[in-house]
Amino acid sequence: MRRVDLVLTGLGNVGRAFARLAEEKRSLCRDRYGIDLRLKAALNSKGGFLTGRATDGDGLGDLAIAVSAPMEHPAWHPGLRLGEALGGGEPGVLVECTPTDIRTGEPGRAFMTEALSKGWHVAAASKGALVLDFPALSALARSSGVRLKYSGATAAALPTLDVGQVSLAAASVSRIEGILTGVTNHILTRMEDGIPFAAALKEAQDLGIAEPDPSLDIDGWDTACKILLISNAVAGTGFQLADVRREGIRNVTPEMLKQARAEGKAVKLLGRFVQDEGERWIEVGVSSLDRAHPLHGVSGTNKAISYFTDTMGTITVAGGKSDPRGTAAALLKDIVNIYRGI
Amino acid sequence: MRRVDLVLTGLGNVGRAFARLAEEKRSLCRDRYGIDLRLKAALNSKGGFLTGRATDGDGLGDLAIAVSAPMEHPAWHPGLRLGEALGGGEPGVLVECTPTDIRTGEPGRAFMTEALSKGWHVAAASKGALVLDFPALSALARSSGVRLKYSGATAAALPTLDVGQVSLAAASVSRIEGILTGVTNHILTRMEDGIPFAAALKEAQDLGIAEPDPSLDIDGWDTACKILLISNAVAGTGFQLADVRREGIRNVTPEMLKQARAEGKAVKLLGRFVQDEGERWIEVGVSSLDRAHPLHGVSGTNKAISYFTDTMGTITVAGGKSDPRGTAAALLKDIVNIYRGI
Repeated sequence: MRRVDLVLTGLGNVGRAFARLAEEKRSLCRDRYGIDLRLKAALNSKGGFLTGRATDGDGLGDLAIAVSAPMEHPAWHPGLRLGEALGGGEPGVLVECTPTDIRTGEPGRAFMTEALSKGWHVAAASKGALVLDFPALSALARSSGVRLKYSGATAAALPTLDVGQVSLAAASVSRIEGILTGVTNHILTRMEDGIPFAAALKEAQDLGIAEPDPSLDIDGWDTACKILLISNAVAGTGFQLADVRREGIRNVTPEMLKQARAEGKAVKLLGRFVQDEGERWIEVGVSSLDRAHPLHGVSGTNKAISYFTDTMGTITVAGGKSDPRGTAAALLKDIVNIYRGI
Repeated sequence: MRRVDLVLTGLGNVGRAFARLAEEKRSLCRDRYGIDLRLKAALNSKGGFLTGRATDGDGLGDLAIAVSAPMEHPAWHPGLRLGEALGGGEPGVLVECTPTDIRTGEPGRAFMTEALSKGWHVAAASKGALVLDFPALSALARSSGVRLKYSGATAAALPTLDVGQVSLAAASVSRIEGILTGVTNHILTRMEDGIPFAAALKEAQDLGIAEPDPSLDIDGWDTACKILLISNAVAGTGFQLADVRREGIRNVTPEMLKQARAEGKAVKLLGRFVQDEGERWIEVGVSSLDRAHPLHGVSGTNKAISYFTDTMGTITVAGGKSDPRGTAAALLKDIVNIYRGI
């Protein structure tokens, strides 16, 4: 049995879901993979918990409960720094769940940089630092001999990277197309029922699917970040966020959707990597897909990605929960696979 | 650069496609993965070629050409045995492409057993030995410290095992449903157009999609083998072929398909792993899927598999070439991933 210490950064919906899931799956991970997960600390930029201070024992359970209402908990430790949380013992995995900031990459970048340089593996759900600074983070992981995994940042439970990196080994990918943001796909699906954009957005916000500031999703930034990370990882491109030709869904009208439906088509916001006549680019935009397209039937909050290859035909993977529990499951998968050598 | 010797058993459509593909992808495998593939020998139960006898140089190319019409080639070596082909050097990978025999498992079982016991990894496309004797082969691989991979036997370029084993790490799978045989799905799709079973089968045979003896596909054996291997690998079941509740597509009529279509449904031959109230079983049978089912739209020779999980929702992967080149690509993927430690 191998003991694996985890330090969690970010105590929002995803971080909390991860703390609960790690507790729920602790015995399965012991039995199936021979790894004994321990949540050593959990923190955000204001403070955090250390195991033994938040709890009487060393279980994940009590810490998971503490994390659910952190600042009110008697063991909350204001100003706890990551260095103290990582401690001096055997390094484990930093589970990075802070909010995505695509302008600065912080606080994720600072957390990941410190952890990697101290020999900790990283499993990340936040996208900012990865999008802005992947080459540096990746080089740091390599020089420290540790892994940097980010399934949680690339459509969460939908295994975009696994399929692209493991299943397409030795194939050449000429094109990638993905419906990568659940919120925008949900809004487009509702608009197909005749609801105008603003009302569909309001509805998604009321349901808790869309953020109060929906720009990251609606204007295509979330899809842009994901197709950028996926394309760079799978097709070996070196794109930056400024390279993405980007269009969101604000200008889509119910009439456009009605027209498309009458022609047997479906309107989707796609992230795309395209290779054509020696040129390669990535783009985010609204497309009208005919029935034969593998992403035509992907509706509601569902996501999917298609890889177009030279030897394996087109491989599409669809589904995967879009909620915090699904993202937590993707983080846990990455952690397990680090210790399986995958 | 790591040199990787390959020995190919089976010189039918898949074996020939593999020899061509290994040649085509040789420089990509060098550049991308640092492995230098060499086809050391290729044989079937009647004889074979050794590199240096089939060719002047050591390239894959000449051997690939020789393999395309083996017995007429001047370098054909009647009675060549696997032991001689493996030779005494550094072990590599046996690429097992002999025809599937689900009664005896031969000749694949003998080839794989010899190779594994001599410290060779195995990448297999033939199903017979895996279905009949997986525990013994797997134990032999473990005790020899080598890998036994079989993407090529579990729906080829459709990454059923990768998704089930890598992407669902730490998830629990309560149900698996797959359209796993391209031929039967093609026939059912044609029957939707009103063509009776016998005519649709004849058409598939004329197109080279169905075998002259179509029983393995039509009676559900092929699907049974695949769901058995997938369920045992992903859900940790220990099923044998006799455990499969099996029904083929011989009794499907165009009227049934017409009726289903009128109700918005689609008739599919599914392989299923089901877990319900403490019972677990696998079955192959004809099902009428409504529009919301993730496999509803999978038509023609396409294949797909859905995993129903506790933490990640439902994950469906679809597509993947069904021809010999697609199977060859799955074999090559397994070989590359063995040396990447995946």
